[in-house]
Amino acid sequence: MNLENNPVFGHKALFDFTRNVFSEMGCSDEDARQAAEVLIEADLRGIDSHGVARLSGYVRLWEQGRINTRPEITVKRNMSSAATVDGDSGLGLIVGPWCMKKAVEMSAEHGCGFISVMNSNHFGIAAYHALKAVEKDMIGIAMTNASPLVAPVHSKERMLGTNPMCFAIPGGKFPPFVADLATSAAANGKLEIAERSHKPIPEGWLQDKDGNLSTDPADLKSGGALLPLGSNRDLGSHKGYALSSVVDILSAVLSGANYGPWVPPFVSFLPLAAQMPGKGLGHFLGALNIEAFRDKDEFFIHMEQWIERFKNATPDHSGASVLIPGEPEYFHKQERVRSGIPLVPKVVEDLEQLSIKFRIPL
Amino acid sequence: MNLENNPVFGHKALFDFTRNVFSEMGCSDEDARQAAEVLIEADLRGIDSHGVARLSGYVRLWEQGRINTRPEITVKRNMSSAATVDGDSGLGLIVGPWCMKKAVEMSAEHGCGFISVMNSNHFGIAAYHALKAVEKDMIGIAMTNASPLVAPVHSKERMLGTNPMCFAIPGGKFPPFVADLATSAAANGKLEIAERSHKPIPEGWLQDKDGNLSTDPADLKSGGALLPLGSNRDLGSHKGYALSSVVDILSAVLSGANYGPWVPPFVSFLPLAAQMPGKGLGHFLGALNIEAFRDKDEFFIHMEQWIERFKNATPDHSGASVLIPGEPEYFHKQERVRSGIPLVPKVVEDLEQLSIKFRIPL
Repeated sequence: MNLENNPVFGHKALFDFTRNVFSEMGCSDEDARQAAEVLIEADLRGIDSHGVARLSGYVRLWEQGRINTRPEITVKRNMSSAATVDGDSGLGLIVGPWCMKKAVEMSAEHGCGFISVMNSNHFGIAAYHALKAVEKDMIGIAMTNASPLVAPVHSKERMLGTNPMCFAIPGGKFPPFVADLATSAAANGKLEIAERSHKPIPEGWLQDKDGNLSTDPADLKSGGALLPLGSNRDLGSHKGYALSSVVDILSAVLSGANYGPWVPPFVSFLPLAAQMPGKGLGHFLGALNIEAFRDKDEFFIHMEQWIERFKNATPDHSGASVLIPGEPEYFHKQERVRSGIPLVPKVVEDLEQLSIKFRIPL
Repeated sequence: MNLENNPVFGHKALFDFTRNVFSEMGCSDEDARQAAEVLIEADLRGIDSHGVARLSGYVRLWEQGRINTRPEITVKRNMSSAATVDGDSGLGLIVGPWCMKKAVEMSAEHGCGFISVMNSNHFGIAAYHALKAVEKDMIGIAMTNASPLVAPVHSKERMLGTNPMCFAIPGGKFPPFVADLATSAAANGKLEIAERSHKPIPEGWLQDKDGNLSTDPADLKSGGALLPLGSNRDLGSHKGYALSSVVDILSAVLSGANYGPWVPPFVSFLPLAAQMPGKGLGHFLGALNIEAFRDKDEFFIHMEQWIERFKNATPDHSGASVLIPGEPEYFHKQERVRSGIPLVPKVVEDLEQLSIKFRIPL
């Protein structure tokens, strides 16, 4: 989407506004700052669907009583390198960083640490959380389940979220390697963008309510379903379905959160499922301590060689060069820190509504 | 492929033959049994490309001095829940189980255990290793890098293996959930089958040496490359490329094995790369202790509910029902234990050659 003709906001101003909204919702100063940081990071990295565009959604969930802005986050059960955390219905934007801190501590002491999280809410971009481990020269892993939008192979029912997996790895002198991907063929945000601009989507992203392939993004809202990564059986959609299922199980069956079709929807106008098997939604977060495996400096040397070699892979005739996962988002951030974050009119309107509601200047 | 008109071998006879071949190569009795078990398990589960079909390949690598059949496998470095293991050029079929045993022990004591492995060789099907954790009511994870056959997005160069990821999860009263997938659109074995039967392959599996899409499986051997899961940029091939890269980095950059285009080829007629950055190929293996996260029986109840709910997802009009990953392979095994393992003539010929070479009756 061309954002060039849209109004541009400085990231610091947007951060302050967002933090103030979370404060008005009742978050502590520290939590409000933390939650705002996660959203602004998404905007800076160019993941516009997961930044301040979602702020009004969190507010609506809070108004419905589905978010506890003063959560008492607790470790429910643990051994030295693994734990289950109860997010106490807190914002995933708060619960996620709380858990990553713990995972990094376990990893520093024992070589790795993994946490399965129940009773949480949407945690923004997975990369934010995984990158918290990279700040400590560790490898970060972050997954979350999400509202059901994806149909398993051979089904027309929405059973899984776009359930992202993220692996963030220190890049030495280069930006971190960050693989952050929805396990569906396309993330929901891409459909929203196509729908706003009345454009058809590629065949392989979506099926309609009867299970037929569709190129009309509006079909998602009329009972259709996103397709798993791989798009069709021949091209491996059973793999996308399997990966998405892994995310669901590690995030929710392991922790006691809701899974599959029972995951609470992000949009507040959809009702909760009946007879939910768990609490809230679930995440799976972890850190691997590089020093437990190999001398850190040695790792960096080889990671740099890995990155250089892949950047120099023989290009095809597309004219594009081979990218390192996470690199485009890294440069996006550099650019947006400098020149600001463009927002589409619909998002600006949303923020203006919040500005009025909470009497906070935008 | 229709295997019905092919000769059928009892799994016990095939196991004995395979074990005897490994013994003749110099493996200890225990190692020969272990290596044979991994290969026969692949045949039983219906992963014919990774079973006894590979036996002659291992023999050729051994003849070239690339496999040490009396390896001294050692922990090079470790903390309580993470370690790097040096496979001493042993068979991956031996090194893998050695490491999984260690990962399960770490996991029993600390909640999880992860091992990055260097100086190893091809380890057969990833599922065999991950399922070792399931036998102890744990979640097993197994990944390996492999000979470069896959091109990153925007490249025509083979830079990555089909780098599988496997997650195996206890299913309670149901067979284990096993997601075992090559991170390429299709595994190499599928191309081999198509090539043998002179059939075109689906568009989206392969590109030719110039980077153009190809449906001729022979193009792989003339400089082409497999495509990452997702097949093209629109459908998310950058995700398959990213996942494959994660497997490569966790298996090799973390351990000190070779990575990317430097991974030693399985086929013995291809030369090793010059100036290899590491030793052998690499794996990444781990176990998560369910009891560290949640009461095991509670986990089983919810895993059973997960499986039942997905089996009952509304079917589409394909006439097929929703499958649980790992279930088809489980039933394949039941059937083949009963009625034997059919082998294509080429594989039977290979085994007959080995029978002559080592004077072992087939």
